[in-house]
Amino acid sequence: MQAALLACTLGLALPCGCRNTPADRPAQGEPAAALPSWNEGPAKQAIFAFVARTTEPGSPDFVAPAERIAVFDNDGTLWAEQPMYFQLCFALDRVKQLAPAHPDWKDSEPFASLLRGEVQAALAGGEAAIAQILMATHADTTTAEFESIVKDWIASARHPTTKRRYTEMVYQPMLELLDYLRENDFKTYIVSGGGIEFMRPWTEQVYGIPPEQVVGSSIKTKFELRDGKPVLVRLPELDFVDDKQGKPVGIQARIGRRPVAAFGNSDGDLQMLQWTAAGEGARFCAYLHHTDAQREWAYDRESHIGRLDKGLDEAKARGWTIVDMQRDWAAIFPPQP
Amino acid sequence: MQAALLACTLGLALPCGCRNTPADRPAQGEPAAALPSWNEGPAKQAIFAFVARTTEPGSPDFVAPAERIAVFDNDGTLWAEQPMYFQLCFALDRVKQLAPAHPDWKDSEPFASLLRGEVQAALAGGEAAIAQILMATHADTTTAEFESIVKDWIASARHPTTKRRYTEMVYQPMLELLDYLRENDFKTYIVSGGGIEFMRPWTEQVYGIPPEQVVGSSIKTKFELRDGKPVLVRLPELDFVDDKQGKPVGIQARIGRRPVAAFGNSDGDLQMLQWTAAGEGARFCAYLHHTDAQREWAYDRESHIGRLDKGLDEAKARGWTIVDMQRDWAAIFPPQP
Repeated sequence: MQAALLACTLGLALPCGCRNTPADRPAQGEPAAALPSWNEGPAKQAIFAFVARTTEPGSPDFVAPAERIAVFDNDGTLWAEQPMYFQLCFALDRVKQLAPAHPDWKDSEPFASLLRGEVQAALAGGEAAIAQILMATHADTTTAEFESIVKDWIASARHPTTKRRYTEMVYQPMLELLDYLRENDFKTYIVSGGGIEFMRPWTEQVYGIPPEQVVGSSIKTKFELRDGKPVLVRLPELDFVDDKQGKPVGIQARIGRRPVAAFGNSDGDLQMLQWTAAGEGARFCAYLHHTDAQREWAYDRESHIGRLDKGLDEAKARGWTIVDMQRDWAAIFPPQP
Repeated sequence: MQAALLACTLGLALPCGCRNTPADRPAQGEPAAALPSWNEGPAKQAIFAFVARTTEPGSPDFVAPAERIAVFDNDGTLWAEQPMYFQLCFALDRVKQLAPAHPDWKDSEPFASLLRGEVQAALAGGEAAIAQILMATHADTTTAEFESIVKDWIASARHPTTKRRYTEMVYQPMLELLDYLRENDFKTYIVSGGGIEFMRPWTEQVYGIPPEQVVGSSIKTKFELRDGKPVLVRLPELDFVDDKQGKPVGIQARIGRRPVAAFGNSDGDLQMLQWTAAGEGARFCAYLHHTDAQREWAYDRESHIGRLDKGLDEAKARGWTIVDMQRDWAAIFPPQP
């Protein structure tokens, strides 16, 4: 449907007037009606053109529905990531929650600084400090307990500056894009450096992405029978880092098909985009460029969080789509309830 | 559909005559017509009853379609596993294929014995020998190369005694069961101790199970750019063993939902069945019992391959379904082409 109309609009040599929507499916929105929070421009046009040429039967770039895998980074691509990754906010809140059971934290870094409210001092220890915080706050529960902890936090915690709930800081244009792709039989996956079990409790409700379509970083778990009842215990031991070179590894391990479309916003997504681009046939690679200091944040080459430097150069050199958030998005976040 | 009819047949207090098949879906087969290779008896009846009570709207045991996860062991559950795991046959064939490039194998075990055709002697080294054979035959290729190697082998290799192709040694009743569950909106997954990349190249064609629904054991892979082209290289290093306690771990890591139905045939599947059974609401756990020495193989408590000992006791104690292959299956393998 979109395909036929769009082909007409763009003057492509596809038979116009034919309507290929099967009778047993509801007619899908016209491209003109899809992606309402995207401004007219090259990014929106590129998305429509890609979906048209991969879904229109008879198109030389047609992709079978089973192969329509679209992967999305999460932090900075589906929801915001400033002034720090939201999962780190969760970890800091949890340090305070757990502190009474850990009296030694008062005298040992990075916990001592955190408990005094000095986040920057705590994080001065770099990756080692962050790993320590993550293990102390993400392990030593069962998977069921951790799910419940995440659900409680995500339902109540508020972003330090916007005071919105974190799930209200998802990008409205990306929600529309996820829907639009799914309407066209793409299967949408998250492929994030974030913790898989930190995302799964809420991705279905917020993004329409079910637990089995979430790929992320993980710690090890162990099966145990406790009083005859089986549980999975989360161990303070890293299992897999789903970032940079890890993203294609995670995609192969968990999905087993190469994506045809990939969306990211930082150098941590570059290998995922390279892996996607290297497949045969039509591919779509896009970078979100955070350019809107008024409505969101503006950052790229110099940012400690979500640095986009090499990726920006490669996107320009290879003609990947660059979504300029200030230019291309009519809205950033969903309307407040 | 099946549900309403079956409820009537069994005299259950469900409203009969109501037809709940949505108008946009084809009517599904009646239970009487489903599972034609299953003999009438308690196993077939238990399957029908479970599907009825979990899919009939209004049933107290109704399971939402998104939660209808059914997991299947592969070796000995979906295809045969005697006289040795078929993946080991693949490995042995590949040792011969690779031997010219490894002149040292002539003098080092387990390869020397294998190359002399003395399989039992080679395997006398136990798990260490098997690990050596697996690493030598499954690593040091790209993922794309390995996929192609597996596809070539599975299309041509023949079972040592039946002379059938290995994919013709899948169980016809289980193919029907997979179809029947999918017709009732169950999502079918393989959860196997076998190698994930050894299964994925053919599971979609043979079982209708796509790559993203295969969970298995794995070796590590590494992302590399070779002449600017991204590849994933298979490393001779174990990543994950999807067997015994590993099966619930693999299910949580890869699927992220607890299954409502699980099918296995050995003690290696016990933890998967325990994990499935421990969920809230209706659950179905079944063991295949290899009892047919004429048409297949008969083995259980004493077998080195597919030992079923503790699992058999627990299945009996907990009232899980035990499929007696001799009694319950009218056919074992699909008809020969």
